[in-house]
Amino acid sequence: MFEMDERLVSDTVPLGNTALCHILLMNDSRYPWLVLVPRCSAASEVFDLTAEQQQQLWLETSAVGRLLKDLYQADKINIATLGNVVSQLHIHVVVRMQDDAAWPAPVWGRGEAQPYSAEAIVQISERLRSALAQNGLIDAEVNV
Amino acid sequence: MFEMDERLVSDTVPLGNTALCHILLMNDSRYPWLVLVPRCSAASEVFDLTAEQQQQLWLETSAVGRLLKDLYQADKINIATLGNVVSQLHIHVVVRMQDDAAWPAPVWGRGEAQPYSAEAIVQISERLRSALAQNGLIDAEVNV
Repeated sequence: MFEMDERLVSDTVPLGNTALCHILLMNDSRYPWLVLVPRCSAASEVFDLTAEQQQQLWLETSAVGRLLKDLYQADKINIATLGNVVSQLHIHVVVRMQDDAAWPAPVWGRGEAQPYSAEAIVQISERLRSALAQNGLIDAEVNV
Repeated sequence: MFEMDERLVSDTVPLGNTALCHILLMNDSRYPWLVLVPRCSAASEVFDLTAEQQQQLWLETSAVGRLLKDLYQADKINIATLGNVVSQLHIHVVVRMQDDAAWPAPVWGRGEAQPYSAEAIVQISERLRSALAQNGLIDAEVNV
């Protein structure tokens, strides 16, 4: 039985499930920022996954990156798996703009997260779910 | 003709060539830190590569990560492609220890790089080249 790390749960809003991962929206309005969490409790490093799971993870990560780049006309997409604080394997995919709060530094550990308003979180979640479904990454119906 | 970004050249020491990438050693003695640079000048994002190149890139990245984890008994491996400063596609693979200079924060933008001594850079390069060759990632003879 897969259980998501509590810190990941508390920092994010679930958007849906891909073939391999939960897709989460980081609740930080400074950056459109998704997190992919493979449903494999024991994995901490990418290379803890099987070769097939790794291939699927990068397929999904690349697809999410391309989707975000197009949707937000991003200047750059940052992709990273760090896990120094939360050891459960998770992949960050972050939209970066040259005028964002941390540019050109990485986003981690820079200032405090600015949670979305209730209205904004509904809007951005719907927009992202719709885009993920259109790209075949999650089912069109809400599957969180 | 592939040309490496000048900043990447000046910050690193070349270790060899994999099937797809140049492998570089970051000249910062605070962390064992490799950088993979696909020999594709036009790529800035992972998804600028072909599907086959992406698959190869992640195969090589995972293999390098596992190798570094074992070689240094790392507490965690950090893998990231940022590119906010150097837009040429490159993948960081960084050995993290719980007592390192930046733990648990990411390594980028934390303090100044501490270059290796001439003697140390030769030793670590030889050790890493040997491990990369033993894992079939680069040819055993120096191919920089």
